[in-house]
Amino acid sequence: MIFYDCATAPSPRRARMFIAEKGLEIETREVSIAKSEQLSPEFLKVNPRATVPVLITDDDTVLTENIAIATYLEARFPEPPLLGETPEEKAQVAMWNAIAETQGGMPVAEVLRNSNPAMKNRALPGPLDLEQIPELVARGKLRVDAFFTLLEERLSISPWLAGDTFSLADITAYVFVDFARVIKTRIPETNTATKAWYDSIGTRPSAAR
Amino acid sequence: MIFYDCATAPSPRRARMFIAEKGLEIETREVSIAKSEQLSPEFLKVNPRATVPVLITDDDTVLTENIAIATYLEARFPEPPLLGETPEEKAQVAMWNAIAETQGGMPVAEVLRNSNPAMKNRALPGPLDLEQIPELVARGKLRVDAFFTLLEERLSISPWLAGDTFSLADITAYVFVDFARVIKTRIPETNTATKAWYDSIGTRPSAAR
Repeated sequence: MIFYDCATAPSPRRARMFIAEKGLEIETREVSIAKSEQLSPEFLKVNPRATVPVLITDDDTVLTENIAIATYLEARFPEPPLLGETPEEKAQVAMWNAIAETQGGMPVAEVLRNSNPAMKNRALPGPLDLEQIPELVARGKLRVDAFFTLLEERLSISPWLAGDTFSLADITAYVFVDFARVIKTRIPETNTATKAWYDSIGTRPSAAR
Repeated sequence: MIFYDCATAPSPRRARMFIAEKGLEIETREVSIAKSEQLSPEFLKVNPRATVPVLITDDDTVLTENIAIATYLEARFPEPPLLGETPEEKAQVAMWNAIAETQGGMPVAEVLRNSNPAMKNRALPGPLDLEQIPELVARGKLRVDAFFTLLEERLSISPWLAGDTFSLADITAYVFVDFARVIKTRIPETNTATKAWYDSIGTRPSAAR
């Protein structure tokens, strides 16, 4: 297998953490987004959609989405389970992973990509150059605030996002909560359940950057 | 189980098609988005995030995301498989489902929600009232065009989106291709592979609206 990573970006970090939690060692190639290497002709041959992470499987299947990489690795290397074991657990992991991605990760990226001068014309990942839309910055901040509230509500009644066990959903939410530093947003001081959850994940070896 | 549906919206239609492909009969309650019933106090008790579809499982787990509903039903009712069987197949289904959702469904919704006067302040689903951003209309159209190109490229080399077997990914893409009529976008005449795929799915009983 070959894993295309980028040390500075949150999406590949999600896959990197998942691989580390599985205890796997996979040949890794760094793609520097700072140097626009994801748009280079060489990398576009690997992934024409110009995104990282990418996992090339042993049978040369090209997997370009975090959920695909996690699904593949979970099926091939079931221990420790990170996608749930019972139907209810599997569904809860899928649900909270999707919520963390769409309600957390996407708005954080929206604020960053539409405000940072270095990301001019890179308002979305992928091969299309898209202009920044300043209105998305204020809207994204509202959504990020709502996500932190949602996280606190959930983690006040559940030790992990999807239930009693650490899972992919925690990886996704942790990476985006951590990445929110780029838009100067941290866990509110009063959100004690989220802070305890965040600090706990920070002690896992997989969270080392 | 109880399934909260909405006859006019694409997201619940995805779950409805999945349930029909599994041959399941589930008690269904209609939530009229036209009447803003998803924002009613009664429905917010079911799903505070104010979205449909919702599936309440037999053990009262509340599943609010399409991927969670599909994951649950696949685990409980494995036949016919709609999420793949081998690790590679499972990964391909997860990948193409995510691509159809983020590259297809989200831009179609973006165009509609930011242009339709009836969706003023409803620029995104969920409990937050968010103003329309006109710039997202042109951007969304570019992204929808790119999605149709991507679909044609994929379906020119693969009978179904995720490979040799009809799957959740086809349901997701079909529903959003069909829904693109609301933004006056149809499959380009020259995209013959996509048209054949679309017409074929249209003959399945699950595609009846």
